[in-house]
Amino acid sequence: MTSFASLGDLRDACRDLPGGDREAAEAVAAREATLTKPLQSLGRLEGLVAWLAYWQGNSPPTLDRVEMLVFAGNHGVTAQGVSAYPAEVTAQMLANFANGGAAINQLARLTGANLRVLPLSLDTPTADFTTAPALTEDAFLDAVATGYDAVPTDADLVVLGEMGIGNTTAAAALAAGLFGGGGERFAGRGTGVDDDGLARKCAVIDAGLSTHADALPDPLQTAAALGGRELAAILGASLAARHARIPVLLDGFVCTAAAAPLYRLRADGLDHAQAGHLSAEAGHKTLLTELGMTPVLDLGMRLGEASGAAVALFVLRAGLACHTGMATFAEAQVSGRSG
Amino acid sequence: MTSFASLGDLRDACRDLPGGDREAAEAVAAREATLTKPLQSLGRLEGLVAWLAYWQGNSPPTLDRVEMLVFAGNHGVTAQGVSAYPAEVTAQMLANFANGGAAINQLARLTGANLRVLPLSLDTPTADFTTAPALTEDAFLDAVATGYDAVPTDADLVVLGEMGIGNTTAAAALAAGLFGGGGERFAGRGTGVDDDGLARKCAVIDAGLSTHADALPDPLQTAAALGGRELAAILGASLAARHARIPVLLDGFVCTAAAAPLYRLRADGLDHAQAGHLSAEAGHKTLLTELGMTPVLDLGMRLGEASGAAVALFVLRAGLACHTGMATFAEAQVSGRSG
Repeated sequence: MTSFASLGDLRDACRDLPGGDREAAEAVAAREATLTKPLQSLGRLEGLVAWLAYWQGNSPPTLDRVEMLVFAGNHGVTAQGVSAYPAEVTAQMLANFANGGAAINQLARLTGANLRVLPLSLDTPTADFTTAPALTEDAFLDAVATGYDAVPTDADLVVLGEMGIGNTTAAAALAAGLFGGGGERFAGRGTGVDDDGLARKCAVIDAGLSTHADALPDPLQTAAALGGRELAAILGASLAARHARIPVLLDGFVCTAAAAPLYRLRADGLDHAQAGHLSAEAGHKTLLTELGMTPVLDLGMRLGEASGAAVALFVLRAGLACHTGMATFAEAQVSGRSG
Repeated sequence: MTSFASLGDLRDACRDLPGGDREAAEAVAAREATLTKPLQSLGRLEGLVAWLAYWQGNSPPTLDRVEMLVFAGNHGVTAQGVSAYPAEVTAQMLANFANGGAAINQLARLTGANLRVLPLSLDTPTADFTTAPALTEDAFLDAVATGYDAVPTDADLVVLGEMGIGNTTAAAALAAGLFGGGGERFAGRGTGVDDDGLARKCAVIDAGLSTHADALPDPLQTAAALGGRELAAILGASLAARHARIPVLLDGFVCTAAAAPLYRLRADGLDHAQAGHLSAEAGHKTLLTELGMTPVLDLGMRLGEASGAAVALFVLRAGLACHTGMATFAEAQVSGRSG
């Protein structure tokens, strides 16, 4: 069991990160250039295969064991009327996941990922962050450790997602705390609030930023004060994957915000992660721009649960299938470029 | 065997088109609203499932038999130095397809499509369109009929692609002939020509547009004069699919240009088709804008062979898996929206 003794201990762990394997990435690029297609004509697919190789340290990389982790938590800030759905839906959806009835169950099966859903103290919502830190330091560190330990060190890829009524409010507050701007910069309609709900959300976020102004210089304190357990677990899982040199596919807005403290603590802290998709949730584009990440897909999805990342996983599989299965110009006796 | 007696006969066939099934699409939308997710939170995936239903006339639609047709042809215009690869590569790649070594072999297997590659008189390239019509009326109609007959009327979806050294030049000329502008508006680097090659390509296209100015008022004459056999076959396959109410997934620039005469002959002539992806080939974005089509994916791919559409097929499968496999709010006993 991993345990972080303090925020300082976790901060050290977030700053002590391995890099990738340049030789593996170069070997992938060298093979791509021999395959029966014009140079770089598979576009993003080729870059993603090289990225997998870089972090796995394998050429070719593999996608045999893809671990999909969906963390769930509850949020005290729902008392402020920031969600279109009641808070009990988080627990109800957990049952739906267990019964195979949610979107991510279908997508995980289709893309060949091992789906695990991990609830984090659903009966104990975070505190309403407008009046108190969402999580105490201990509760935050516990959730980070839970996420950290959920990553199997032999996974080829970790796909991260979340479920939690109210968590787009927490994510927007966290993003604003990390990157500046108020609620308006990062708040969106979440599961579908109306104009009044959106205005409430912005005001609630601004109140949280004001209450926790002292925490904002520290990305981890900010995550504890404004985030939530499932967000902390995503941070922990992202960190564990980096320590084990496992590439990560992030889902949408909440997931990206949850992992963002790693970037704030070290500029290359999320280099092992790709944004699976651009969510329709309003703040995601701004957040990805802050992080310098280009999403794989843009399909107007905004469900969470790792659903966008699950579709992106197929793009990785497509790239890898071409990389490993295609013939070279020499093998196929196809002529190269003229002149 | 289908046979079109004349361009006029084909034109009539292109104007006599069935519509879709509104009730099937509405039934899909009605079910989507009951599934355990926020309204429309699967974004484009939901619209694509409704589109499949609309054309298949089935709710839910099916993707059990997906026919992937890759047409290949050779182009006399390659004599003008418009491609980075020699013309013999078309035939060599056919052998590569047969041996399972091309990108599309890997992608078709991964996405569960039945791949068929159909060469069209590879030993008889089209005429160099700068001096003569690429195809005689008879040769054009033959190629259209070949494509028409390649579509199995019991397919759930047809995915179209192409292979042909020189065919981005033919496609750009055809697009310019149909939508106006010169070579500069639609020419790109194809398999990877340098700046000189691109300038030659533009000049060659402009010469073709000038030579065949009399043909331009007629989309089918334009296709015969500037296109090619594989482009004509794609037109025929798109038409056959429409007559059989089978939805179509188009690949990139060449494929889109090939089908575009259907739009020119009837404004709703490509409503049964989706653009699988935005190709990195320069003219594709302009062409899709002319057609009012929004591509499913944008991955910087520019290989052809139906490769971009093959990746998009997975997005359709993802949408359909969610649509058919998810539990409803009632089944899962999940609470609906508050208030």
